[in-house]
Amino acid sequence: MPVLTDVISALDTLWPPETAEDWDAVGTVCGEPDAPVGRVLFAVDPVPSVVEEAVAGGVDLLVTHHPLYLRGTTTVAADTFKGRVVHSLIHHGIALHVAHTNADRADPGVSDALAGRLGLGADSPLVPLVPDPADPTGRRGLGRFGELPVPMTLAALAEHAAARLPATAQGVRAAGDPDRTVRTLAVCGGSGDSLLERVRALGADAYLTADLRHHPASEASEATAHTGRGPALLDAAHWATEHPWCEQAAGQLTAIAAESGWDLEVRVSGRVTDPWSTHAVMLR
Amino acid sequence: MPVLTDVISALDTLWPPETAEDWDAVGTVCGEPDAPVGRVLFAVDPVPSVVEEAVAGGVDLLVTHHPLYLRGTTTVAADTFKGRVVHSLIHHGIALHVAHTNADRADPGVSDALAGRLGLGADSPLVPLVPDPADPTGRRGLGRFGELPVPMTLAALAEHAAARLPATAQGVRAAGDPDRTVRTLAVCGGSGDSLLERVRALGADAYLTADLRHHPASEASEATAHTGRGPALLDAAHWATEHPWCEQAAGQLTAIAAESGWDLEVRVSGRVTDPWSTHAVMLR
Amino acid sequence: MPVLTDVISALDTLWPPETAEDWDAVGTVCGEPDAPVGRVLFAVDPVPSVVEEAVAGGVDLLVTHHPLYLRGTTTVAADTFKGRVVHSLIHHGIALHVAHTNADRADPGVSDALAGRLGLGADSPLVPLVPDPADPTGRRGLGRFGELPVPMTLAALAEHAAARLPATAQGVRAAGDPDRTVRTLAVCGGSGDSLLERVRALGADAYLTADLRHHPASEASEATAHTGRGPALLDAAHWATEHPWCEQAAGQLTAIAAESGWDLEVRVSGRVTDPWSTHAVMLR
Amino acid sequence: MPVLTDVISALDTLWPPETAEDWDAVGTVCGEPDAPVGRVLFAVDPVPSVVEEAVAGGVDLLVTHHPLYLRGTTTVAADTFKGRVVHSLIHHGIALHVAHTNADRADPGVSDALAGRLGLGADSPLVPLVPDPADPTGRRGLGRFGELPVPMTLAALAEHAAARLPATAQGVRAAGDPDRTVRTLAVCGGSGDSLLERVRALGADAYLTADLRHHPASEASEATAHTGRGPALLDAAHWATEHPWCEQAAGQLTAIAAESGWDLEVRVSGRVTDPWSTHAVMLR
Amino acid sequence: MPVLTDVISALDTLWPPETAEDWDAVGTVCGEPDAPVGRVLFAVDPVPSVVEEAVAGGVDLLVTHHPLYLRGTTTVAADTFKGRVVHSLIHHGIALHVAHTNADRADPGVSDALAGRLGLGADSPLVPLVPDPADPTGRRGLGRFGELPVPMTLAALAEHAAARLPATAQGVRAAGDPDRTVRTLAVCGGSGDSLLERVRALGADAYLTADLRHHPASEASEATAHTGRGPALLDAAHWATEHPWCEQAAGQLTAIAAESGWDLEVRVSGRVTDPWSTHAVMLR
Amino acid sequence: MPVLTDVISALDTLWPPETAEDWDAVGTVCGEPDAPVGRVLFAVDPVPSVVEEAVAGGVDLLVTHHPLYLRGTTTVAADTFKGRVVHSLIHHGIALHVAHTNADRADPGVSDALAGRLGLGADSPLVPLVPDPADPTGRRGLGRFGELPVPMTLAALAEHAAARLPATAQGVRAAGDPDRTVRTLAVCGGSGDSLLERVRALGADAYLTADLRHHPASEASEATAHTGRGPALLDAAHWATEHPWCEQAAGQLTAIAAESGWDLEVRVSGRVTDPWSTHAVMLR
Repeated sequence: MPVLTDVISALDTLWPPETAEDWDAVGTVCGEPDAPVGRVLFAVDPVPSVVEEAVAGGVDLLVTHHPLYLRGTTTVAADTFKGRVVHSLIHHGIALHVAHTNADRADPGVSDALAGRLGLGADSPLVPLVPDPADPTGRRGLGRFGELPVPMTLAALAEHAAARLPATAQGVRAAGDPDRTVRTLAVCGGSGDSLLERVRALGADAYLTADLRHHPASEASEATAHTGRGPALLDAAHWATEHPWCEQAAGQLTAIAAESGWDLEVRVSGRVTDPWSTHAVMLR
Repeated sequence: MPVLTDVISALDTLWPPETAEDWDAVGTVCGEPDAPVGRVLFAVDPVPSVVEEAVAGGVDLLVTHHPLYLRGTTTVAADTFKGRVVHSLIHHGIALHVAHTNADRADPGVSDALAGRLGLGADSPLVPLVPDPADPTGRRGLGRFGELPVPMTLAALAEHAAARLPATAQGVRAAGDPDRTVRTLAVCGGSGDSLLERVRALGADAYLTADLRHHPASEASEATAHTGRGPALLDAAHWATEHPWCEQAAGQLTAIAAESGWDLEVRVSGRVTDPWSTHAVMLR
Repeated sequence: MPVLTDVISALDTLWPPETAEDWDAVGTVCGEPDAPVGRVLFAVDPVPSVVEEAVAGGVDLLVTHHPLYLRGTTTVAADTFKGRVVHSLIHHGIALHVAHTNADRADPGVSDALAGRLGLGADSPLVPLVPDPADPTGRRGLGRFGELPVPMTLAALAEHAAARLPATAQGVRAAGDPDRTVRTLAVCGGSGDSLLERVRALGADAYLTADLRHHPASEASEATAHTGRGPALLDAAHWATEHPWCEQAAGQLTAIAAESGWDLEVRVSGRVTDPWSTHAVMLR
Repeated sequence: MPVLTDVISALDTLWPPETAEDWDAVGTVCGEPDAPVGRVLFAVDPVPSVVEEAVAGGVDLLVTHHPLYLRGTTTVAADTFKGRVVHSLIHHGIALHVAHTNADRADPGVSDALAGRLGLGADSPLVPLVPDPADPTGRRGLGRFGELPVPMTLAALAEHAAARLPATAQGVRAAGDPDRTVRTLAVCGGSGDSLLERVRALGADAYLTADLRHHPASEASEATAHTGRGPALLDAAHWATEHPWCEQAAGQLTAIAAESGWDLEVRVSGRVTDPWSTHAVMLR
Repeated sequence: MPVLTDVISALDTLWPPETAEDWDAVGTVCGEPDAPVGRVLFAVDPVPSVVEEAVAGGVDLLVTHHPLYLRGTTTVAADTFKGRVVHSLIHHGIALHVAHTNADRADPGVSDALAGRLGLGADSPLVPLVPDPADPTGRRGLGRFGELPVPMTLAALAEHAAARLPATAQGVRAAGDPDRTVRTLAVCGGSGDSLLERVRALGADAYLTADLRHHPASEASEATAHTGRGPALLDAAHWATEHPWCEQAAGQLTAIAAESGWDLEVRVSGRVTDPWSTHAVMLR
Repeated sequence: MPVLTDVISALDTLWPPETAEDWDAVGTVCGEPDAPVGRVLFAVDPVPSVVEEAVAGGVDLLVTHHPLYLRGTTTVAADTFKGRVVHSLIHHGIALHVAHTNADRADPGVSDALAGRLGLGADSPLVPLVPDPADPTGRRGLGRFGELPVPMTLAALAEHAAARLPATAQGVRAAGDPDRTVRTLAVCGGSGDSLLERVRALGADAYLTADLRHHPASEASEATAHTGRGPALLDAAHWATEHPWCEQAAGQLTAIAAESGWDLEVRVSGRVTDPWSTHAVMLR
């Protein structure tokens, strides 16, 4: 049975930590380097419900996409939910490891899993990693851009996304002419508003991401209307755009375990950690 | 008939510009000080569809909540939609005036109009303006906090908000236990995530605002779950939370015009400038 | 007849906007991209007297050296002279375009025109643009440095400059020994105090620029006196050092119009926009 | 038996956290709020040898003067000694609490304990806390300043300090004329170089602190020699100047436990955590 | 005969160093505190010609308005003119003392001497020092504002200033309508462009200062033309606006010497240290 | 006999000023460029006792390792010891020149002299200068790392250093297991705490430097204990680690003088300028 540093080394080949953003906090958050690891759980958020699932399932290593502490902390006291997470994990001997923007930029990465759910073909990164000698085919980078399996209207694409992504209460919203035909789609798992100009420059018909607020969405939509060029927008739950990566990652680790002769059980969390629990439709 | 500076002076008594945030850009964006003003239009966003409505309606002064240029510009050339807005307004002799965070903090202000739509009683500011000698009753400030007309579950409150607010495609979403009973509600028109800790400290049962992204919503919800105290969350379209202010402001200006003996026609824009045009429900 | 974007494209080949300083604000300030352009006026300053000249002359495009808004603005309301300029231009369908530090650094540029007026031969930039693959002869850059047609005393050089530059009330002042012989001269149109050390290093006998204040002029003169090496200084009106560029630029655009078969009338403004209107001599 | 929050509340009355410096990280680092506390250990440094002592002694709460994480961390993984400290403490159910600059500034505080060891009389703060309505007698603040029990030479004072402070390998060094008579002494537990100018202004004959480097010590000594006024300097091990506070703090908590009827055992760590383990004398 | 510290103490009562700007460098630049002082020389600039005058005149203390090192230096080696100044002064036992923005803000201060030359009556500061308990009559502060002895045109005022101020080659220039009548005048010795808005707000008819560059002068003049309100501008040599202070200061120190029974000779430098040595008129 | 600029040119070939750190202040602090130089004195600190030695010895040029003004000054008045140093030097015609971080990084540099005293063989820089085309053998850089002549325990190494370095009152202290065997030693003259991580990465058994404070020494020692790898620490007086450079530098300049045929006497200061004058041992 491998120990923690063995499994972390394997994960680091999939998502090299040095490719993370400067402001990011990836890597191992807690755990003993020499502890044996027999069961691994993948999840989007390191929140108490996921930790409970890990404890109940006898998990040794929890791997999440979101950092527990993105900004540094000077305390892990159990009077906050994050401190409680640390205490529970250490009490039960469970390590926590984070692959965040390094997983976003990997090949395959977070947006590949999202693109795969939507059936996108011939995709390439929105923002390639430059320079990246370890990536001769140029497939590393943020976001993905490719062709839909068939052209469809924006309204139909919203329904398509709602059917293919993990279900959440808030559904999928779209901005732009509902009857516009969409052939090429850009996607970015998580909060992708910083890539709006890049998507426009690449000429995508539509862009699906999460956490778009009023001002970026309004400015992008008005610019598209003013110039007659630019993407329609789709916005799904942040969690729904990133959870597909958990399945993908679990498959990658399972394959490595097989190659390495490790007796490792790899699972994906079933908890929906999108905070929005209910939704009310408005009559228009 | 009043001239532009007369009407602006009146608006400045309602929403004193010196109460705006330091980073904000309120006041008159274009227009001739001495131009006569016979017709005024209120809207949330200074976008082309609203300008078309103003031109078509023979409006002399457009008053919006959002600034056209929140950050300074060195060009108003008509090759962007904002420059096109400036050219159209000047061509048609229409002035543009902005009341943004000064309207947020006024008494009554943006969140009063929102609270009124939801039937909130006995409300007071979430963040009072301090020190404010011009406000002896302490009613100026950001956000509002008060009691619902009757206690209701969080799910029922989401339906209530969806029924009372101006309709948009995205509807209203809520975070927290749908069956939780809500008696007191905090509201903040527009993007209110910066007030989350304040709402928690005040002990509100729920908080309705706009533009809540995954991480603030998740952290607030987990903290509520961890401690057993803290607000449920509701999120509506940014535009829907601020449009009620237009009606309120139009009423205030109409009253001033009557007192001043001005022959002034005051209107509220009917254009929905929320960018989200369609929504797909997910089956769970 | 060309439209605005045609003419701007031509100007951008003369003064590529990407060669401007980072802090500068060059490009089109107002105007419709598709408006036909039949008459162009060049001037140093985008001030009301120049705009009046443009309106009276039926001009379609005003090109100035100085930006209207060097720092960004959030308002163009007509209660300031700059806002009035914007309103007048848009009302009369006149576009405004700025070529500032990109014109300073071009070949030929602002200082070439100044050097030409003074009869400077064999000149080269004071501060070459590096790296500039588009400039194999190395003639792009700030300022110019060359030989006077004949050696002359500093006092005579001041008279020479006063005779050759566009006349302004303040005349030309000089620092250093009036009887010193000057053979080589450095020039920089506009405020050139930042190049004083560069001029010293190049070994020029004198340096003509504008806007020299007491401390830089005193320190440079004392350093020259202390070491026995370094330039004498000459200071003319800022406007007088930059207006020669207008003639040069008008000639360049006229040539392009001829090549392109455009029916374009190109003029140079006759208004002196140096603010200093009168001067009193002191008896010593 | 009290729980953790009871004991922390008591400690916060002794060393109010809001009096700590802005850059400091005081408070509870790990532990369960509701855990019963029967045994408390005070120490200067939260290092592994002290944690071993706490584990071996069945301690429930370790209180240290130095923070474990002065700057924020995004990981507590056990591959560093600090992460190992966190894992050991949580594994053994031991809470860690820090009182740093709030203990420095308290009445009595860290420098009171140091002053007491040296027999200093009638002492007052070097830098009083201003404004401090909770301290009408003005005894809160950094450092202490008072009279030695009897005047002595600087050399004798160094021997006196060496005899009275907890023993460390490096001993006590002094700067200034060894025969100078010292009547008044300023002290500051820990690294006190920032108070050198304050000590000079107060007119103390000598100043004892820790971690004085060459340049501050040299500049202060030369200034004293140049002006004939100013303090001699004494430098002891950082740990030796702060460990006396542990005894003082233990006494304070024991008194509170007695008043509160708590069955609490309070201990002081016996480990010398000064890193310097040996010293070689130089022959001169 | 007083020693240096006696004379400096007297000067500090006239121009308290703590009233200087934060960025300024006032006080004693070189000299021995105990050196006897029998002869004092006042000048505007600490330049070599003034030092030669001091050496030739057997001066013990040179007091200048401008700092030798406004920004800190790490060398006074004699390979620059400033280092040469330091070497000459120390070699000849001459102290150097600077009263800069503390003299600007004093009562009487630099602008009082300038106002006196121009015959200004009933003057008060442009920018009062606030709060200044040591100045109950409110006469301390930057710049002065008062009435001309008789109203005169701007052109006549320029001639008046040219006749009354110390003569320099560059003369006096003015911006605005030469025939405009001026009744009230604001003045600021030295570079006064930062006070332009203050002068406008106070309603002065004209403002005389030094070192006005094109952009501030142009913007101020255009704003005056646009609104029909605001000051005409006059610009004299920086040195000419500050040299009158030397006479005033010499008189103040002479009076103190008489009161103190000091045998002190006080002189004013006769060197013109304005760098501009010649001027050429332009024909228009 | 050479003049000052001749000798400085020679020193600049030994310690090129452009290799100094950005924040450093190296070069000539005072002196006349053309003054003849017959006698040179090397010392660590430019303090009054050293200046007295220079005056008494008829020295023309004092070369020190430490800057007199590391941060810029606006005054050299003789009311501080630094101003007194400047006055004394100029009065007696003595120049002062500083070689600081340029001497640290030279080949041979400050740490070479220190390594030589300790008998270190086959040494190389801790932090090589990169890129350094003038150093093909890669010997320039901060610190040195090499083998001890024979392995010894840490306690024996402390005694060895105490015997070989210039004697100071404080002696040498060491952190780590006194019985640990040390084969390889890293050294850095002066305050070397910033190189601790570099020393660890290079795998040195011990590191000797100066001015190590509690927190860096404690964290480095705990990290060594936690991982079982990393250096023991030794700390000597800052002065004692840098004075060996004076002998080395004197030898270098003597050789240059011989080659150049200069009649130059080169000395090394005998004053101990370490501020610590006495030390008291603690009994344990």
